[in-house]
Amino acid sequence: SSLSSGQYSTVYNVLSLAIASLLFTALYLLLSQRQVAPRYRNAIVVSAIVCGIAAYHYFRIFANFQESYPAGATIDAAHVLSNVEFNEGYRYVDWFLTVPLLLVETVAVLALSRAASQRLLVRLVPAAALMIVLGYPGELTLETGPRVIWGVLSTLPFLYLLYVLFVGLTKALEGKSPQVRAQISNLRWILLASWGVYPIAYAFPLIGGDFFSGAGGFVLRQTGYSIADIVAKALFGILIYRLARTQSREED
Amino acid sequence: SSLSSGQYSTVYNVLSLAIASLLFTALYLLLSQRQVAPRYRNAIVVSAIVCGIAAYHYFRIFANFQESYPAGATIDAAHVLSNVEFNEGYRYVDWFLTVPLLLVETVAVLALSRAASQRLLVRLVPAAALMIVLGYPGELTLETGPRVIWGVLSTLPFLYLLYVLFVGLTKALEGKSPQVRAQISNLRWILLASWGVYPIAYAFPLIGGDFFSGAGGFVLRQTGYSIADIVAKALFGILIYRLARTQSREED
Ligand SMILES: CC1=C(/C=C/C(C)=C/C=C/C(C)=C/C=O)C(C)(C)CCC1
Ligand SMILES: CC1=C(/C=C/C(C)=C/C=C/C(C)=C/C=O)C(C)(C)CCC1
Repeated sequence: SSLSSGQYSTVYNVLSLAIASLLFTALYLLLSQRQVAPRYRNAIVVSAIVCGIAAYHYFRIFANFQESYPAGATIDAAHVLSNVEFNEGYRYVDWFLTVPLLLVETVAVLALSRAASQRLLVRLVPAAALMIVLGYPGELTLETGPRVIWGVLSTLPFLYLLYVLFVGLTKALEGKSPQVRAQISNLRWILLASWGVYPIAYAFPLIGGDFFSGAGGFVLRQTGYSIADIVAKALFGILIYRLARTQSREED
Repeated sequence: SSLSSGQYSTVYNVLSLAIASLLFTALYLLLSQRQVAPRYRNAIVVSAIVCGIAAYHYFRIFANFQESYPAGATIDAAHVLSNVEFNEGYRYVDWFLTVPLLLVETVAVLALSRAASQRLLVRLVPAAALMIVLGYPGELTLETGPRVIWGVLSTLPFLYLLYVLFVGLTKALEGKSPQVRAQISNLRWILLASWGVYPIAYAFPLIGGDFFSGAGGFVLRQTGYSIADIVAKALFGILIYRLARTQSREED
């Protein structure tokens, strides 16, 4: 397997974009912590941690990518896969940590009663972890059979999780101001739009054909995962911060 | 393509100057945050983040430059382009993040009403992102046709952005003290002078001839972009900080 120099640059630049976005969003959130009321600070710190964990993994993915696809003999030459595997596992390790934490930060910023938060988290966190664990064996193979089976198994907790977020959570929002509810509704749609990218990117090799099972699919999958990560973590973190600011102001 | 040892040193030292200026301006701004009233702190933090993101990219550009133009056999020998491409993409990834943020910090330091800020940002931020995205494909090619077309397309949002900054923003400044208005006017001129460098540096290869399409043009372009980055981010960040100080003092 090999990448043209244009394909290589695309992945390279997208990975670097992810590092910069995630690292500096983490820093921004840490520095802005005191702009929100104390009860929302945990949500902001968790958002910063999520971006920090992701930035760490992107540094690893970046270095791994450079090793796996070294420069050819000339600038225009293809980058041929070396003896070092491109390790898709980094992403799953990252998600295993960050996806549950994203749900923790989402519930934390709502500042619900202790019991209501607890009720949401015991549903959301195990479902998120299960979703990632079940997707992993499917990602490692390019064979259709197992990829479909693990993909479907992983989709079950995914759907459950969306159900809890869109139905279960709505009841918990009564009593919030219209502005806060509008922001929460935005947050959920951004979550749905970005999280929805992952199963689609996962399915590329299943579409088959030279493009989707080859270098084209690889580039599209890496780009898709990276941009979805930026939206689901960095942009999402900024929106969580804004929601916390709005609520802090209202309570002043 | 190859650089004489003098040309190599020039780019090398300018890149290092950019790292030092941007990294330590970021640090300075972070450390000075508490010298301004709380309502201006977000502008200062965003300025620091902008300089930090740029410093990160300059570290990458620097390492990439060393790999692309390795030392020759002797000290005086030319640095011949290796098999590793010099990746102009870092700059575009950087601008894609920092140019919208520069506009965010500019609007933030004005401390306008929420509605007025919103009105400016929904115009400025998408125009800035569009300008960078449209310039990128043109930068990748040295062919005249596409370079001109993408350059012109990218100039449209650039002009719109300047229009909003110089016309739209003026109305928003009524009620500010003469000193503050003078500082804001300075800020805008510095912005215009530094941002104006980018399209000029972009156009060098179009001038053609041995100098501008060859090593001379490369050195001039790298130097131009780097110095413009220092002015547009580090110096600009310091001016934003001074403006925030002036306003904090007036409100005391
Ligand atoms: C449904 C499904 C998946 C879902 C993954 C998701 C939803 C990942 C979300 C990741 C996030 C939000 C990362 C950090 O920002 C997998 C595992 C690809 C396997 C195929 C089926
Ligand atoms: C108009 C125009 C351009 C403008 C670029 C600008 C205005 C970049 C500003 C960058 C800053 C301010 C960076 C950080 O400090 C391009 C993309 C070169 C393409 C050619 C046309």
